[in-house]
Amino acid sequence: MSIKDLAKAAKQASIMLAATATEQKNKALQTIAQELRNRKEEIIAANNLDLERSKKENLAAPLLKRLKFDEEKIDGVIDGINSLIKLPDPVGETLASTELSEGLELYKISCPIGVIGVIFESRPDALVQISTLCLKSGNSTLLKGGSEALETNRILAKIIVDATAKCNIPNGWIQLLETRADVNEMLKEDQYIDLIIPRGSNDFVKYIMENSNIPVLGHADGICHVYIDKDAVIEKAIKVALDSKCQYVAVCNATETILVHEAIANAILPQLKWALETCGVEIYGCAQTQSIISVLPATDESWKTEYLDYKVSVKIVKDCVEAVDHINTYGSGHTESIQTENKDTAVYFLNHVDSGNVFWNCSTRFSDGFRYGFGAEVGISTNKIHARGPVGLDGLLIYKYIAKGDGHTVTDFSEGKRKYSHIKLNKPLRF
Amino acid sequence: MSIKDLAKAAKQASIMLAATATEQKNKALQTIAQELRNRKEEIIAANNLDLERSKKENLAAPLLKRLKFDEEKIDGVIDGINSLIKLPDPVGETLASTELSEGLELYKISCPIGVIGVIFESRPDALVQISTLCLKSGNSTLLKGGSEALETNRILAKIIVDATAKCNIPNGWIQLLETRADVNEMLKEDQYIDLIIPRGSNDFVKYIMENSNIPVLGHADGICHVYIDKDAVIEKAIKVALDSKCQYVAVCNATETILVHEAIANAILPQLKWALETCGVEIYGCAQTQSIISVLPATDESWKTEYLDYKVSVKIVKDCVEAVDHINTYGSGHTESIQTENKDTAVYFLNHVDSGNVFWNCSTRFSDGFRYGFGAEVGISTNKIHARGPVGLDGLLIYKYIAKGDGHTVTDFSEGKRKYSHIKLNKPLRF
Repeated sequence: MSIKDLAKAAKQASIMLAATATEQKNKALQTIAQELRNRKEEIIAANNLDLERSKKENLAAPLLKRLKFDEEKIDGVIDGINSLIKLPDPVGETLASTELSEGLELYKISCPIGVIGVIFESRPDALVQISTLCLKSGNSTLLKGGSEALETNRILAKIIVDATAKCNIPNGWIQLLETRADVNEMLKEDQYIDLIIPRGSNDFVKYIMENSNIPVLGHADGICHVYIDKDAVIEKAIKVALDSKCQYVAVCNATETILVHEAIANAILPQLKWALETCGVEIYGCAQTQSIISVLPATDESWKTEYLDYKVSVKIVKDCVEAVDHINTYGSGHTESIQTENKDTAVYFLNHVDSGNVFWNCSTRFSDGFRYGFGAEVGISTNKIHARGPVGLDGLLIYKYIAKGDGHTVTDFSEGKRKYSHIKLNKPLRF
Repeated sequence: MSIKDLAKAAKQASIMLAATATEQKNKALQTIAQELRNRKEEIIAANNLDLERSKKENLAAPLLKRLKFDEEKIDGVIDGINSLIKLPDPVGETLASTELSEGLELYKISCPIGVIGVIFESRPDALVQISTLCLKSGNSTLLKGGSEALETNRILAKIIVDATAKCNIPNGWIQLLETRADVNEMLKEDQYIDLIIPRGSNDFVKYIMENSNIPVLGHADGICHVYIDKDAVIEKAIKVALDSKCQYVAVCNATETILVHEAIANAILPQLKWALETCGVEIYGCAQTQSIISVLPATDESWKTEYLDYKVSVKIVKDCVEAVDHINTYGSGHTESIQTENKDTAVYFLNHVDSGNVFWNCSTRFSDGFRYGFGAEVGISTNKIHARGPVGLDGLLIYKYIAKGDGHTVTDFSEGKRKYSHIKLNKPLRF
């Protein structure tokens, strides 16, 4: 089948899946969990093929670690599915209800988006997480995983296809793509695909955004900031800055620039430098920073750089207003944190920073669906519409308006025979 | 100023506007209403210039009627502003709150999108409605109205700029564009503009969608359907079909195709034909329809046609399933209505039709922000993400996550010193 045909089949399946009962979706999720347990050995054997090939291809050790899908990780995704089963069905919720006029009622009802294309990195757990989130939310999905995980993804997709077919989930609701060329074809199918969620490198996400008419949910850059205000407690601020930068450097919510209020710079910078350098972080400082501590020079380019590494830019600012301006100019709308004991300053920062996640006295590394308590996440969005920040089940839903009448016509209203009442009903839709 | 500079200024203003107090925004709205009242004569004089020029240019009578902005229409927009003032501020609402761990709280807070570009048709009332909706929701806006209304739009924009400047609303929050070339420049400013809402012809909206990386909210086609089921009450069904087609033919929620269940076709088609033809509607029917009533032949093209005129396509289907398939194949996701007394059939239709508005026993013409009780609307969306159906204030908002901690680090959690609690707080954010 061509990618167009796969996308078309996914669209057709999505219509039926949108109207599939909660019990049937949960039964299918249970069956997936069961089959993953039953077919553990097959999965591990397939994963070993991927691991062996990738070792021969000299894949870096951290990537091999992410690729590995052993018994523990399989148990992890099964636990995830069991949590997902327990969540209420997000589809069919009454979000609002209004009597428009006597006998004419309007309901705003949550429903699936339709068909979601997801492109994810090497971890095979992502395939199970994303497809089960899509199933629970009633969406069809086209998935493209990392090519290193080819064999593992194939067996996982097959297990999910088999398990859901047994439970009468419509055929075609999940489709596995395998090549970069497939992805390029997918980007053209705006007739059938409603949303693309790309996870991966900055350049890759930008490429997707520029090469498709399909809406894209996600983030390219993750240039996060920690701002240390004059009213910060030094020890606490350094602890948070260090965690934000170093707890895991290779991820989008790691901090790339530390902004320091000039009134606290002399007091904090030497300690901050010592703490960062102890963790192996290379510091690029503005001229004023360099006049206090000996560090490498920062350029205008430094403020736009997502290091994803043991490197950080440091800039001295004259106040919180300048810090906010800097963030809104150079940031990527991802996550920023202010360190201060001054409530008014914190409120200014939280209200004026134009990012999806704005924190007060805590690490930027908390910006994550699991830490937010969403269960699994489909990604982190720096979009300004639909969904922002870490995106869980909610981001896979939209709504439709359902009206029930009894032969109501607009003519009756324009002729004055009927009147609009617009009374809030606060009751769920019942047929 | 170049369009880039205008967009940049709007973005800067949007940061401050997002944090502007409710009272200040309402004060500004009051001042706009007052100034519109005070400067009525200036507005009417400017509108007369537009009307005279447009008459000379032989603008069609219905367009002249829309262009006319007299005392009654001015009073109408002033009433609209007064209603808007009474609505609660949609910004700063706590949508969710969670204790992530002891002393670390997460809040999901509604906030403005940022900068909205709106392109609207000849009615000058739209300028006031859209800009006041943007102000209430804390968004900056770039507006481009119909060129026929040039003078009227200029004076209205000036009144709004003056009134809001008096109330310390940040300069640059509203910008008036005047040419098609300006619009083309605007489409490139994805760095500063967060959303485009185009209102206008199908081709124009498609052009916007294909020529910008900025997300677009709106609809191109409005191919709405009425499906008359075998269990319909004939008289009621004809009344609804007639209203859906004829109450106002030139709008997106007017019906373009009537689908008829084959079991009721012989009974209903002759009466339906009589009723439609009495209203001056030309009928294009499928072969089976033509075997029952004498009408023009429909082709495959007919099902894809938005007539916006006294014309309608009629097709006989074998059941509700085929009707739903037809709608999901040829429809535009706008508005569809089933006529039936059978609850199960209605539920199947409402759950399986993939449109923003799905109705049971009422006219497709109800699909409208005013009729839904939203007050003013910014447009009707057939998008599958962010906002669907008629879009009021809600569609101009997104959210940000705000976290408050006390030096919390992810390291403490990864080392087991702290644990996630993820307790729902159900309390609004208070500093």
